[in-house]
Amino acid sequence: MTTKTAIQINEVGLRDGLQSLNRPIPTDNKLLMVERLVALGFKSIEIASFVNPRLMPAMADSAELASRVPRVEGVRYRGFAPNLKGLEAAAKSGIHDIGVAIAASDSFNQKNIRATTEQALAVAGEVAAAAAEYGIGFNACVATVVYCPFEGYVAPEKVARLVDELQALGSQNIVLGETIGRARPEEIHQLLTTLKDSLPAENIVAHFHDTWGQGLANYRVCLEQGVTCFDTSLGGLGGCPFAPGAAGNVATEDLLHMLGSDTYDTGLDLPEVAAVAREFCQHNELPYTSRAGNACLLSGDSPGPGAEDERPG
Amino acid sequence: MTTKTAIQINEVGLRDGLQSLNRPIPTDNKLLMVERLVALGFKSIEIASFVNPRLMPAMADSAELASRVPRVEGVRYRGFAPNLKGLEAAAKSGIHDIGVAIAASDSFNQKNIRATTEQALAVAGEVAAAAAEYGIGFNACVATVVYCPFEGYVAPEKVARLVDELQALGSQNIVLGETIGRARPEEIHQLLTTLKDSLPAENIVAHFHDTWGQGLANYRVCLEQGVTCFDTSLGGLGGCPFAPGAAGNVATEDLLHMLGSDTYDTGLDLPEVAAVAREFCQHNELPYTSRAGNACLLSGDSPGPGAEDERPG
Repeated sequence: MTTKTAIQINEVGLRDGLQSLNRPIPTDNKLLMVERLVALGFKSIEIASFVNPRLMPAMADSAELASRVPRVEGVRYRGFAPNLKGLEAAAKSGIHDIGVAIAASDSFNQKNIRATTEQALAVAGEVAAAAAEYGIGFNACVATVVYCPFEGYVAPEKVARLVDELQALGSQNIVLGETIGRARPEEIHQLLTTLKDSLPAENIVAHFHDTWGQGLANYRVCLEQGVTCFDTSLGGLGGCPFAPGAAGNVATEDLLHMLGSDTYDTGLDLPEVAAVAREFCQHNELPYTSRAGNACLLSGDSPGPGAEDERPG
Repeated sequence: MTTKTAIQINEVGLRDGLQSLNRPIPTDNKLLMVERLVALGFKSIEIASFVNPRLMPAMADSAELASRVPRVEGVRYRGFAPNLKGLEAAAKSGIHDIGVAIAASDSFNQKNIRATTEQALAVAGEVAAAAAEYGIGFNACVATVVYCPFEGYVAPEKVARLVDELQALGSQNIVLGETIGRARPEEIHQLLTTLKDSLPAENIVAHFHDTWGQGLANYRVCLEQGVTCFDTSLGGLGGCPFAPGAAGNVATEDLLHMLGSDTYDTGLDLPEVAAVAREFCQHNELPYTSRAGNACLLSGDSPGPGAEDERPG
């Protein structure tokens, strides 16, 4: 019997999937969804962003949500904390891991957080130090790893330099954020090749959006290069639902289907995940755009171990 | 300077993309679209299916359309002809290439064409012989190459046997039809590995649907294995627009974006193709679902050589 490769899926739908909404989602709805995700076997769930609630109304309840989620052994909750104020709120809420994001593109940092890359690194250093004091995990994300909406193509060497600086702050794992979802497989391959010496595949968390439909193909390239940790969003939530074409992260269901159960072990069951994700979307009037999820629910596959395996004999 | 790999894209939107519709599309609209596709640089365009018009109302004008399309050097028009009657009509229309499709799954043949695989092969043999007499190109397609809606998983060895039999009928190139769009990259890799000895990559035409969102990732696997010929559908047309989740072929625009212009040469320009494809869909009240197409049109990329290339310097 061949050993299967364990894949870690970080569910980011409740954070990245909702943060662009211009309305709140009831905390009780989120809490119910977290409980369901835990019951389905998710071990890493991103639920919060400790930012100015006026900028992100759907994240305004981050502290409350993080303090109410069920504490279950082996399950870690993650959130974003862009500065010390956010980190203090995160610490009080009892969240396990916090993240910061800095773009490889200077223009993106200027327009997105009104700071130079150097300034952003200084703040990230403060957050990292405080997180260490509180015993909170610290994960840094490099955003715009291939394309920036303002600068266009971003050279992999630029990403490599920022990776080094963020690892120096204490983030062993680095989230590679393909923020605008435009990169193609060739470009992801080139990025990973450039990073190979400084960032081993086991320290990469791939966080790709699916705007140009390349998300799964790009995740396939990551798998081939040995990456085993992926951010995905239930139902493909994310982007702005009012701007057609601005898509969310790769859908959790799409990745689950791609992985299957012969070679990879996720601990998750696609029909179960799809059913729960679609119900959350419907209940909260959010678009449910996962192709694999829709196809799976239409095909009538019943949940349960082996449901994905149709091979005879 | 590195030599780019030439990729042949067969545009099937006007055939596979429309054949499930329960209404006709005006012949003049199709004709205008063919003229535009030719002007954009498409060299292989599938436009017809010479079948019972009651079964496929949108294909009822196949003979008329095929007789009216502009004859341009280097451009080949293709159609399906399931039997001798269809082949006779195809020959009269002046079409260049005709195709037949037989499923690797016996149940699919029984339910889809009410014939055993043996019977279907006998008919295909008659069509191939008649096509040769008329000087029409003959391309055979193996359908359900990984999944059958009735039998589930289809063993690659079964596909390999049918490939041999179809090549014996004179079809050097074989279209591999992933009919229900459910296969994952691992499975495509396994299929191509099994076929390696009997069917070289240069004789494969990949024809994959995108129902479970795996289409591009699967085409990436094909590219890695040396396949250079792909069927795609403008705007992701296909499936049944009245059955959510039943998706069409991989969208032409999605593949064009994945290929880019650094490594591969398609002779086509994504912004131009997206603009023309979306207009066709809107004009004919068809859903336009290409992610890359929508993203490209939203991003405001202007058509023209190099428009896809944002690299500085």
